[in-house]
Amino acid sequence: MKTIGYAAQSALSPLAPYEYTCRELREDDVAIEILYSGVCHSDLHTVKNDWGWTVYPTVPGHEIVGRVVDIGASVTQFRIGDNVAVGCMVDSCQTCSHCHSGEEQFCEQGFTQTYNSAERHSGEITKGGYARHIVVRQEFVLQIPPSLDLARAAPLLCAGITTYSPLRTWQVGPGSRVAVIGMGGLGHMAIKLAVAMGAHVTVISRTADKRADAMQLGANEFLISSETESMQQAANRFELILDTIPVKHDVTPYMPLLKVDGTLTLVGQVGPMAEVNTVPMIMGRRRIAASLIGGIAETQEMLDFCARMNILPEVEMITMEQINDAFERLEKSDVHYRFVIDMQASRF
Amino acid sequence: MKTIGYAAQSALSPLAPYEYTCRELREDDVAIEILYSGVCHSDLHTVKNDWGWTVYPTVPGHEIVGRVVDIGASVTQFRIGDNVAVGCMVDSCQTCSHCHSGEEQFCEQGFTQTYNSAERHSGEITKGGYARHIVVRQEFVLQIPPSLDLARAAPLLCAGITTYSPLRTWQVGPGSRVAVIGMGGLGHMAIKLAVAMGAHVTVISRTADKRADAMQLGANEFLISSETESMQQAANRFELILDTIPVKHDVTPYMPLLKVDGTLTLVGQVGPMAEVNTVPMIMGRRRIAASLIGGIAETQEMLDFCARMNILPEVEMITMEQINDAFERLEKSDVHYRFVIDMQASRF
Repeated sequence: MKTIGYAAQSALSPLAPYEYTCRELREDDVAIEILYSGVCHSDLHTVKNDWGWTVYPTVPGHEIVGRVVDIGASVTQFRIGDNVAVGCMVDSCQTCSHCHSGEEQFCEQGFTQTYNSAERHSGEITKGGYARHIVVRQEFVLQIPPSLDLARAAPLLCAGITTYSPLRTWQVGPGSRVAVIGMGGLGHMAIKLAVAMGAHVTVISRTADKRADAMQLGANEFLISSETESMQQAANRFELILDTIPVKHDVTPYMPLLKVDGTLTLVGQVGPMAEVNTVPMIMGRRRIAASLIGGIAETQEMLDFCARMNILPEVEMITMEQINDAFERLEKSDVHYRFVIDMQASRF
Repeated sequence: MKTIGYAAQSALSPLAPYEYTCRELREDDVAIEILYSGVCHSDLHTVKNDWGWTVYPTVPGHEIVGRVVDIGASVTQFRIGDNVAVGCMVDSCQTCSHCHSGEEQFCEQGFTQTYNSAERHSGEITKGGYARHIVVRQEFVLQIPPSLDLARAAPLLCAGITTYSPLRTWQVGPGSRVAVIGMGGLGHMAIKLAVAMGAHVTVISRTADKRADAMQLGANEFLISSETESMQQAANRFELILDTIPVKHDVTPYMPLLKVDGTLTLVGQVGPMAEVNTVPMIMGRRRIAASLIGGIAETQEMLDFCARMNILPEVEMITMEQINDAFERLEKSDVHYRFVIDMQASRF
């Protein structure tokens, strides 16, 4: 199937229209017409080759909402016309213990990323959601529950599951005390999800600027990390701190805020962390962990949870033509809280 | 009660005989004649004021084995003549939730250290085990099980509990795969304890030098961290890595050795860690934790476990007069694996 997307031809070139062919449907494949595509900071990192592994031309996008337009011969879980979603993964070995336990993100052979990854059969580089169409094997396609707003659902596929999964792993529930650091695409979802799970949620920020926004998103408290006294009073308070800051930073000042056996989980910082002082870890058996998206079953569970609890990301709709401007604003954190590309409103 | 110990008068002076008075027995106090005292690296750090909080004169020692010589009026748990032990703590608030749950090491008011700590009633600086006597409230005195060799038991009070506690916290048992990094006082106890719990134990070391020693201590495997291929083959193998290295180092190379959800627990490194790369943490939801000794109940459990399983530290007996030479050797890691001061053989 011929399609068209927006691709970067090099680390220095803007995204521009690019025609290519989706693979012929295999028997377990689902062909999807993309309706909405979320804009994740990883897309920008990949386009700019910040991580050094980009293969050009690259078509980014791993927060995909669309409609089934064709299915392979053995597809049983989807019908033409279904509203579906695709997240960060489009394949895995399906045979290792992690795939069997529904944690394909830890596939022993490595999962196939939705874009910029070698497709397991052909070796071709996968192309993502900044496009009209995508073909994905049915095991990696998710159902969109009927009550979920299609236009706003896209960011759940990365920002949603990336924050939902650690909240579940560290057993957040009614009465849990959770802190969220960083209030971007991931942070704002973390607040909404933790509140919906029944937790008492505190947002930690360097200044008071975001207090009103945090409260509007449902946070119970707001803690200013530059205020020494407030930080001291908040010692030993949280079971879990979800740290969504996407750049290198020192987590040491946050560690005393954790209860004994509490965990600070990184979901934003990729690469070297600043030096951590072990003393507040030792003095409370505290832990630093990191988390990576979630498995397919858990992603479906998250979509169902969001539909049931009426949780949706805050989004700013754009068209495909506006993507380069959106990237510039994203680089300055100038977005509340996620851009979503409306494919039907786009003219490419 | 008048007593005599070995004290440092400053960061630069050697340990030398020093007379002082132990407090008059309070009703819940136990007076102990010290028979054996282990030499922990913390003693050396304190004498040299490496952590900046030493109050001179300082009498170190928190691995104490002795005999009860007097008891206060309300003491019910001990009788004169009992073989007893004292570890790193001699008091805590006894009222906070952590004290109530038997984890006095996390006392909300801070526990009173066996030496170099302000005594809770008088404010006097506590003096430790490099001495003839010590007076300790009964809640912080431990029973030595009859079958435990008194001379070799002392290092269990710090090196033993510091490694036993994380093995229990991270639920090591039959079939667990555990790695131990560092083979000094703590590391050699970690090997013995983990093996006794039924774990499959791998020692990780930079060179092959310690292979024979590791095997003799009971290790099942030996992994050389400078051999890239061996390290790659050992990926995703361990549920727990106990890192006993006492100096600043980078834990990143060890993280891929952990299974998904595995934990590397620091029990030696105090202060800033070298920069950690988050990628191997993210790619397996792996964790870095730290652990601090153990509670009194758990310390008693550890002593009972060691008696039952016939586990004892490897020690080199010295007299009090040899302590300054022993410190010099300790600084060069020239000890297999713990010095123990034999007080009865000492002439001070």
